[in-house]
Amino acid sequence: MKITRMHGAGGKIMQDLIKNIILKNLEITSVNGGIGLESLDDSATIPIGDKEIVFTVDGHTVKPIFFPGGDIGRLAVSGTVNDLAVMGAKPLALSLSLIIPEGFNLEDLEKIIKSINETTKEAEVAIITGDTKVSDGVDDVIISTAGVGIVDRGKAIRDCGVKEGDAIIVSGNIGEHGLAILLSREGFDFETDIKSDVAPINKLIEKVLSEGIQINAMKDPTRGGLADALNEMAEKSNIGITIFEDKLPISEEVQSLCDILGLDPLTIANEGKVVMAVKKEDAERCLEILKEHPLGKNAEIIGYATKEHKGVVMETIVGRRIVDMPIGDPIPRVC
Amino acid sequence: MKITRMHGAGGKIMQDLIKNIILKNLEITSVNGGIGLESLDDSATIPIGDKEIVFTVDGHTVKPIFFPGGDIGRLAVSGTVNDLAVMGAKPLALSLSLIIPEGFNLEDLEKIIKSINETTKEAEVAIITGDTKVSDGVDDVIISTAGVGIVDRGKAIRDCGVKEGDAIIVSGNIGEHGLAILLSREGFDFETDIKSDVAPINKLIEKVLSEGIQINAMKDPTRGGLADALNEMAEKSNIGITIFEDKLPISEEVQSLCDILGLDPLTIANEGKVVMAVKKEDAERCLEILKEHPLGKNAEIIGYATKEHKGVVMETIVGRRIVDMPIGDPIPRVC
Ligand SMILES: Nc1ncnc2c1ncn2[C@@H]1O[C@H](COP(=O)(O)OP(=O)(O)OP(=O)(O)O)[C@@H](O)[C@H]1O
Ligand SMILES: Nc1ncnc2c1ncn2[C@@H]1O[C@H](COP(=O)(O)OP(=O)(O)OP(=O)(O)O)[C@@H](O)[C@H]1O
Ligand SMILES: [Mg+2]
Ligand SMILES: [Mg+2]
Ligand SMILES: [Mg+2]
Ligand SMILES: [Mg+2]
Ligand SMILES: [Mg+2]
Ligand SMILES: [Mg+2]
Repeated sequence: MKITRMHGAGGKIMQDLIKNIILKNLEITSVNGGIGLESLDDSATIPIGDKEIVFTVDGHTVKPIFFPGGDIGRLAVSGTVNDLAVMGAKPLALSLSLIIPEGFNLEDLEKIIKSINETTKEAEVAIITGDTKVSDGVDDVIISTAGVGIVDRGKAIRDCGVKEGDAIIVSGNIGEHGLAILLSREGFDFETDIKSDVAPINKLIEKVLSEGIQINAMKDPTRGGLADALNEMAEKSNIGITIFEDKLPISEEVQSLCDILGLDPLTIANEGKVVMAVKKEDAERCLEILKEHPLGKNAEIIGYATKEHKGVVMETIVGRRIVDMPIGDPIPRVC
Repeated sequence: MKITRMHGAGGKIMQDLIKNIILKNLEITSVNGGIGLESLDDSATIPIGDKEIVFTVDGHTVKPIFFPGGDIGRLAVSGTVNDLAVMGAKPLALSLSLIIPEGFNLEDLEKIIKSINETTKEAEVAIITGDTKVSDGVDDVIISTAGVGIVDRGKAIRDCGVKEGDAIIVSGNIGEHGLAILLSREGFDFETDIKSDVAPINKLIEKVLSEGIQINAMKDPTRGGLADALNEMAEKSNIGITIFEDKLPISEEVQSLCDILGLDPLTIANEGKVVMAVKKEDAERCLEILKEHPLGKNAEIIGYATKEHKGVVMETIVGRRIVDMPIGDPIPRVC
């Protein structure tokens, strides 16, 4: 069998690959009883004394490397910071592994490093180690960023902790990153202002946590979009999630482009968003706190967790529909 | 200016790139007063309580991915484990970032994961997090492995700690990894048994440390070979190193192939070796301990540190010669 792009698209096919080929063949997958690989959460943890080290990684191969709203450097920092932040951890340090094509422009490399620097300052995270390889076997620069953060022992927020009655909150407009990339890659002729939402959201999450809001589960809805994140949270928490279509924060521009292209905004990647399951009593206050921050200004309570069904269900004006786990990449109807 | 393969070859040109383009443009490069990026050591550290978290990364783009003596999976685990181990740290966990070409064989992927698993068992290290991307912009699978280890606070072993009089010890035969790769890549027609030395050497180093040997500096002589590692140690420690040509552990086969190809074995990469600066009084005992372990059986005391000169000098039967920091890749004279 051959690897297809679906194996890297953040849906069901990728998950099966990870479970059946990777996880199945690895025997040492956790340390000191921490959150291990088998949890398939945004990060893993290593308990040390009264703390847990939180550890994660993402590799980035985005095309084009400079896109509306950001670039591969900003993406590499934000993606990893966000996977730490959604564990309730404070991101401390990143590693920077670069694979650079022979013949790549030094000026472009410097632009990327400067963007990385700006993003680390926003997130207040350090780059403390790295590696540089040059290859004639890659088209474009690839960046893999691992991250180390810290959380009090036992306080990591899992994606499997959704409780009955929890409010489901998303921190802002969905679908922008994936759509911005798609449009700039395929060279569509639309006049659009759609920009990637790529941003480190650790400060936003820290603010919510510092105000004592009880977050029972959290995830960044990246590849696979909100549909993937909600399905994972529901399944791992053994609970159902109901969302309301009219509560979903989606810009008009994203919505109309999705309509034209036949795409479901729920399945499109975000790179500066978080979805939380928040204790019902804390939901309104959580929303207020989010809305005070520029990165949370479009936050919405989009639904609630329930024992009345499994999986993710969306209430629409024409009735209820199941929101499935995406299979692979969202493919535009026109191309 | 364009990036060339020399920028990724682990010599002077790569170091200049790292210093002038990467380090210069990054503003947050250390955490809590730990060993930061500016040290350009094998790993960085983050002090937490009475411990330091040790953090490193290496990206791997080896061609071919299966080679005599190992494969990219074994390499990815060993390289990262070794960068933690040469800090005197105990490796705890690795992250596994895969970039897989579209059309890659699933069976080959599984072979690589199984090799990763075997190597993690040898090193007793866990894989706790990862990421999987599929790209049509890469020729072959790329693996970036970051690693987290732990050391008692203030006990990390730097590459800048060489003291006058220290014995310089290398743990075994040099030049095998780079030569094995070169021969299998270029399709030379030599009959050879040369195999990569790729192996995790943390257990070997732990044994030496557990016997109370005082190691003042340590490095794994990977890209750039022993010449690079010794030059870095000497320069950063502000001291000279003298080595003896007739003490260098080199197999006959590697030596004669290097002679034919016009290569200097001192500049060829190793992936299962360590070079240590050991307190003079401990040197013989250190050598004994190393030799008891299969991975250290060819260990040798190859020289000593001195204030009489700067840089690295080699005594040969025809006199002394300077061992320069390599510029970039070792290029075979015949091709
Ligand atoms: N190559 C791999 N090796 C080991 N674990 C992996 C690998 N790829 C993914 N995983 C694990 O599978 C889970 C899901 O990975 P995924 O990359 O989808 O998460 P994510 O980083 O939160 O999402 P995204 O990559 O879209 O930002 C994580 O727990 C991750 O550690
Ligand atoms: N892209 C990068 N970003 C930040 N730091 C880097 C980068 N590349 C290398 N460095 C830093 O430069 C130093 C030298 O890196 P190098 O990769 O040569 O070390 P190494 O891993 O010990 O050697 P090798 O990669 O040959 O195994 C290290 O401290 C590393 O953290
Ligand atoms: Mg995530
Ligand atoms: Mg991620
Ligand atoms: Mg390296
Ligand atoms: Mg090293
Ligand atoms: Mg290394
Ligand atoms: Mg990921």
